[in-house]
Amino acid sequence: MVPAAELARRIESFQVELRAAEVDAALLLQKVDYYYFSGTMQLSYLYIPAEGEPLLMVVRDWDRARNESALANVVPCPSVRQAPVLIQAQQGRLPASLGLEFDVLPVKEYFRIQKLFPGVRLTDVSGLIHRVRSRKSSWEVGQMLQAAALAAEVYAAVPRLLRPGMTEIELAGLLEAEAKKRGHEGLLRMRSLNYEAYTWHILSGASGGVVSYLDGPVGGQGLSPAFPVGAGRKPIEAGEPILVDFGGVVNGYQVDETRMYCLGRMPDKFRRAYEACLEIERTVLEAARPGVSCHYLFGLARATAEKLGYEDAFLGPKGKKVRFVGHGIGLEINEPPYLAEGHDYPLEAGMTFALEPKMVFPGEGAVGIEDTVVVEANGCRRLTDMPDGIIEIEP
Amino acid sequence: MVPAAELARRIESFQVELRAAEVDAALLLQKVDYYYFSGTMQLSYLYIPAEGEPLLMVVRDWDRARNESALANVVPCPSVRQAPVLIQAQQGRLPASLGLEFDVLPVKEYFRIQKLFPGVRLTDVSGLIHRVRSRKSSWEVGQMLQAAALAAEVYAAVPRLLRPGMTEIELAGLLEAEAKKRGHEGLLRMRSLNYEAYTWHILSGASGGVVSYLDGPVGGQGLSPAFPVGAGRKPIEAGEPILVDFGGVVNGYQVDETRMYCLGRMPDKFRRAYEACLEIERTVLEAARPGVSCHYLFGLARATAEKLGYEDAFLGPKGKKVRFVGHGIGLEINEPPYLAEGHDYPLEAGMTFALEPKMVFPGEGAVGIEDTVVVEANGCRRLTDMPDGIIEIEP
Repeated sequence: MVPAAELARRIESFQVELRAAEVDAALLLQKVDYYYFSGTMQLSYLYIPAEGEPLLMVVRDWDRARNESALANVVPCPSVRQAPVLIQAQQGRLPASLGLEFDVLPVKEYFRIQKLFPGVRLTDVSGLIHRVRSRKSSWEVGQMLQAAALAAEVYAAVPRLLRPGMTEIELAGLLEAEAKKRGHEGLLRMRSLNYEAYTWHILSGASGGVVSYLDGPVGGQGLSPAFPVGAGRKPIEAGEPILVDFGGVVNGYQVDETRMYCLGRMPDKFRRAYEACLEIERTVLEAARPGVSCHYLFGLARATAEKLGYEDAFLGPKGKKVRFVGHGIGLEINEPPYLAEGHDYPLEAGMTFALEPKMVFPGEGAVGIEDTVVVEANGCRRLTDMPDGIIEIEP
Repeated sequence: MVPAAELARRIESFQVELRAAEVDAALLLQKVDYYYFSGTMQLSYLYIPAEGEPLLMVVRDWDRARNESALANVVPCPSVRQAPVLIQAQQGRLPASLGLEFDVLPVKEYFRIQKLFPGVRLTDVSGLIHRVRSRKSSWEVGQMLQAAALAAEVYAAVPRLLRPGMTEIELAGLLEAEAKKRGHEGLLRMRSLNYEAYTWHILSGASGGVVSYLDGPVGGQGLSPAFPVGAGRKPIEAGEPILVDFGGVVNGYQVDETRMYCLGRMPDKFRRAYEACLEIERTVLEAARPGVSCHYLFGLARATAEKLGYEDAFLGPKGKKVRFVGHGIGLEINEPPYLAEGHDYPLEAGMTFALEPKMVFPGEGAVGIEDTVVVEANGCRRLTDMPDGIIEIEP
């Protein structure tokens, strides 16, 4: 359960943002957002005024929401049509301006809310929500450490499970079984109309060189045009780089990480490229601290890759490279900060991000490292603190 | 790969709908929708004029999109800002009215499109898309039969995998491993801001009686307030009803089904309730054929439950019942038709739906049957054609 003090701190931070933006109140409809501020994912509408107590209006299931949420005002609300009346009753008035999640809210819902709140100015507060959510508390970092501990056990099982000739997707399924029995929540969450997060990002040999629709350095073949990313039907053979990128999730909090495996000895070309990835990771993490620009860190990663002779392979093949080397992570796998081109804002203490320098060789394979870290006063602390050497397994 | 003739038929049907609605063209941004009309899920914008050839504008990855799609016009489009120019170039003009997916399109994208197409009337065509998609071709039914065959193998593995004391989520993980090695695509897709589909809907004993935020008759405890549905940490014991609701998905096409298991003998109370579910399923399927109202079929299911003495348990506990007994299914798990209160439209040949009469006993458990069927000229054909008896396993 999310502690009451944790919720109070989050709501207060968001209210500061609302007042600075001169928005009277926000109405949150996306469950990850209202879970963050209320502690429950029961189907709800969460009203947060710029000053005063929030109001959680629960469509289903009210009994569970009351048990799960430490908020004081949790009321049943069978339909959004009742929201204005409930808000008026509890707050004494309706807002003049109302913030919504324009980045995910469907147009249909927007028009429905417009009708329910005539004369109210509707405005986008998704940026404010992201800003508040990007600064993690120590309680949140604790949740992510739990996810990391669970994921570490899954990674530790790879040598026991991997057999030559096994398909990528078969290994993925075995890892999911390991994860689930330990309480892994299965669905990674991504804030997007079209991108879907999933755990089975396992790519061997040539699969690692296949570019996909995904905005990630390494795509993969997937299973069909209807699921064209991640693990596919390719059998895993000896001597290939095997990239295992299996996110962890506990209590909704996620970590993202990648480790490299090989049946037998990893060929020198991939071994050297992997060493370069580790060097880039070290370089970026040594520079990353509060106040340093995310755009700068992306440039530093790219410059280091170039210096090491990996301009062509870094973050995808030429002409198809992605333009980030790190992404914020927490309740969703694509949060600010982005260590990306043009993202010229500073890191702040409490931010958590996954750093993933990766090298792609079309037709041959991909290698890379990925770790989730938290930004602290004097630098970064790795949450996914597993050994980072290539794991070679007797075939 | 989706055959060219299949795409042509779908586009033609949609163009008939567009012309009837007096909409000049549609711009589809949601990947399940544009996969349906183009055969690729590579990140794209699909322009479909009310007359003439569609234009697939691909953000990433163009090479894969060209290989996967049988459409004639597949062009690169690094940013949506280029869409108007590309449309103008290929179609010779911009539309006066443009249909969008208001049910899923984020507000932010809507305003971006509004800016890119000044003076163009934007309108909702999600209903038209759903109508076209609800009538499945024999090719699509073939895909769903493949998903059903895969799922049948997963269900067949339950007696071998289930052990007393195993948690629900552990069994779920083992079934996922069975599914994945056979090429199950893992993610069930649901068209919703907040609902998420998943395969691990496995509920034993009292878990089956726990209501959730999910709009489904049987909820479950889940793993935490951040994933409060489906399989949980409860150990599975002898003599409990075990409900396994594990959807299948191949090439993006899904089937949904439920079977009941028990370690040892299923207690009579649940056995009788399950017999009632089978009776309701038979009654509804005997009545379901083209022309019959979905609202009527829902009422028939409810009346049959009442006649059999299950008014209280049918579709959830009193005051928390769901108001549907069946949902359309295909590329998404929540499509029309809905066998639901107020859905007074007729079944049509080619429609596919999952029928799920279920009984919930708070504090005790849940039982139910679920099958995916296709509507044919003279009635329904079951796609998930597995034995429907309770499977009792020696503990």
